[in-house]
Amino acid sequence: MAKTRATSGLDLHIERTGHRVRAGLETALREAIRDGRLQAGTQLPSTRALASDQGLARNTVSEAYDQLVAEGWLTARQGSGTFVADLDSVTPLRATSATAESLASIRFDLRPGQPDLTSFPRSAWLSATRSAMGAASDQQFGYGHLRGAQQLQNALAAYLGRARGVIAHPDQVIICNGFTSGLDLICDVLVHRGTTRFVIEALGHTLHHRLLARREMQIATIPVDGVGAVVSELPSADAVLLTPAHQHPLGGALHPARRRAVTTWANQEGAVIIEDDYDGEFRYDRKSVGALQSLAPDRVVYSGTASKSLVPGLRLGWLIPPNDMLEELIEAQRLTGRHASIVDQVALAHLIESGGYDRHIRRMRNIYRRRRDRLESILTERVPSARVRGVAAGLHAVVELPPGKTEDEVVATARERGLALTGLSETIAEAESPPPALVIGFGTPPSHSYTAALARLVAVLEHS
Amino acid sequence: MAKTRATSGLDLHIERTGHRVRAGLETALREAIRDGRLQAGTQLPSTRALASDQGLARNTVSEAYDQLVAEGWLTARQGSGTFVADLDSVTPLRATSATAESLASIRFDLRPGQPDLTSFPRSAWLSATRSAMGAASDQQFGYGHLRGAQQLQNALAAYLGRARGVIAHPDQVIICNGFTSGLDLICDVLVHRGTTRFVIEALGHTLHHRLLARREMQIATIPVDGVGAVVSELPSADAVLLTPAHQHPLGGALHPARRRAVTTWANQEGAVIIEDDYDGEFRYDRKSVGALQSLAPDRVVYSGTASKSLVPGLRLGWLIPPNDMLEELIEAQRLTGRHASIVDQVALAHLIESGGYDRHIRRMRNIYRRRRDRLESILTERVPSARVRGVAAGLHAVVELPPGKTEDEVVATARERGLALTGLSETIAEAESPPPALVIGFGTPPSHSYTAALARLVAVLEHS
Repeated sequence: MAKTRATSGLDLHIERTGHRVRAGLETALREAIRDGRLQAGTQLPSTRALASDQGLARNTVSEAYDQLVAEGWLTARQGSGTFVADLDSVTPLRATSATAESLASIRFDLRPGQPDLTSFPRSAWLSATRSAMGAASDQQFGYGHLRGAQQLQNALAAYLGRARGVIAHPDQVIICNGFTSGLDLICDVLVHRGTTRFVIEALGHTLHHRLLARREMQIATIPVDGVGAVVSELPSADAVLLTPAHQHPLGGALHPARRRAVTTWANQEGAVIIEDDYDGEFRYDRKSVGALQSLAPDRVVYSGTASKSLVPGLRLGWLIPPNDMLEELIEAQRLTGRHASIVDQVALAHLIESGGYDRHIRRMRNIYRRRRDRLESILTERVPSARVRGVAAGLHAVVELPPGKTEDEVVATARERGLALTGLSETIAEAESPPPALVIGFGTPPSHSYTAALARLVAVLEHS
Repeated sequence: MAKTRATSGLDLHIERTGHRVRAGLETALREAIRDGRLQAGTQLPSTRALASDQGLARNTVSEAYDQLVAEGWLTARQGSGTFVADLDSVTPLRATSATAESLASIRFDLRPGQPDLTSFPRSAWLSATRSAMGAASDQQFGYGHLRGAQQLQNALAAYLGRARGVIAHPDQVIICNGFTSGLDLICDVLVHRGTTRFVIEALGHTLHHRLLARREMQIATIPVDGVGAVVSELPSADAVLLTPAHQHPLGGALHPARRRAVTTWANQEGAVIIEDDYDGEFRYDRKSVGALQSLAPDRVVYSGTASKSLVPGLRLGWLIPPNDMLEELIEAQRLTGRHASIVDQVALAHLIESGGYDRHIRRMRNIYRRRRDRLESILTERVPSARVRGVAAGLHAVVELPPGKTEDEVVATARERGLALTGLSETIAEAESPPPALVIGFGTPPSHSYTAALARLVAVLEHS
């Protein structure tokens, strides 16, 4: 970095950085103009003078001037020299610090919603990527194949039929960027249909609630209990978002009678059921409950994701819509650019076809089952008044607080001790009064720190 | 696949497929119910009878019945048996063939918009993926880091500053799923601001026009000529979409005086300029024209993409917004789930940092320059009345048709001969009357077929 002073009628500091001389000079001049050090109308030194001052070749300076004239920073007046152009003032840029996460003080994280990130099978993923990229056609990397890699559509249709009981033709499979993206895409279609009466479960993801509100849906809620959403209370509506395999957060599977009732309701209303099957792969006590979609494939948009089965960072999700919604969704996806990486798509297809995906899920199911068992047994033993609910499936459990404790108090005490917790009331879409409880995510901590995280939880519940 | 017949008062064909006996039985029963072969209210054979008929263990049948009861297909009445539940009729699914592309008859493709897909450096990409995945933290694969991998934000801020003259702090870089996704995200923010008066160039991408129309923008157009958009005709508006480095499709760079004028206009209007820098890396005759963004970083959303520099299938694009738009864009991105694969993000970061991205672009610049030269020279020699325009940059050229020829005629004749072409009139946003011309994309054909594609083009222009 050289700090130099130009002469020739102009007091000018320019700092040139980096190796590329002309680019450095251009950058220095742009900055000087932007900072106001070089004011509009100021005549620049002649190329000869500046070259001499800076120890540069004259044509380097000429080229830099030409470039900045082309970019609009300078103007060249024939015969009279080069001048700083008349730009409107610009305010200097600065980074916003509000977006930076300040999670440094958290040592243990038992908040729900995330799988064990340390178990992401990176080498299997990389190996699948290598194989799949080797086998992909050149055309697959172009615009024509953005909607979904045919390999992945085939693999998912077969996998979901086999593992989740979903009825799907490969052409029906829409690959999107995770569930949030898929839900927003569905809303896009609903808005364009003019059907915006939307029902959600009274306890659920606040992000989804905010997404719907942003889409200007008219939102109603229905209660949830230990066997899912109370669908008998469904009002007249155009769409309902359900978590039938594993209610989030309470943890129950939708009761068989309710499964039938909600499809009857949807047929009567002409409504769409959005089945958020976010962690249907992880069921511990019995065979997994098949997808609701198979009961009413012309009413249900089945939605799955790799965010829990693998990791959220892949941003891979899939929709299996009713046939009469398929073209609308494809068009909306195209016009809003909601496509997932083709590289990851073919990699996931390869992982499923090779059996690696099933192996990973079986392995994780065992890990999570053991974690759940340990959570349940340590609380039963050490804090018997804290009742553990909804543990037959998934990556989280609801822990009702011992009498006399409030969520705010427990969450705050835990935070002071470096443990991040989520209160059940944080998952409420509308005014409800569930019992004081925590939603404990047992997927999140790496295995080596799970014991310590549980110990910290017990300490907080015993003493706070 | 065993085809069997159940007795016990029920004439039932069930076809069990695959190895897993119970799953096969469940699938067969579901299908029979869905097809109407098993009607609502029908009593199923006892588990003992069906087990006997099918040669299965009785508890396999019991478990299958239990599962289907849980899923709502069957109902179990205590003491009286198992019955098919009363489901509403479902229509059978079928694949839509309308979405299948029928490009089989195209042998040569000179339509614009796509890079040479055969030149995607797959092994360099894979190698970057391997290195970057090895270096990434576990946390990066979680929800907390969806907005953008810090490595890629750093790499792009440095690269764009160096190669495109963009002024960006890494925290300002938003990674999205290609330009379409970024434009829709910007529209989302504009809609929520209530600022929907949008200006586009009169010749441009019809997809963008349709995207804006879907977002219910009030769209106005300004003319374009050989030196970009005629910004003196800008009406009062909230936003303008420009292609300053390389007007699409005419091919000119925005004139320096117009660069200044449009920033003045934006400051006066309080408007946003969206700078679509889709192929700014590819300039052949002189140094690349720096980004307009650097003239007015608090007015311009700079937008770049890997779709031309690498391939569209990666779905990687980036926005550098003004500071006062950053938080709104981040929030909109979060609520609409528009995040790119973290794997691809860290891979691109590694490719940039290792110098591989620059090497690839230099290599492609030479390839495209030679292709452009051959297009220009063969037309000059063989069809001198077809004038070639806008060839200083990018992956396409405008070829004005010889007198007496119409676009429709030439495009149709070419199609009959297996050559796909795009008429200039297909890029028109609003009623305009440019001269009859083709927009020839010379990036698309693989190298081995480019000569033949040009020969076919010459033949069509000479004789059609």
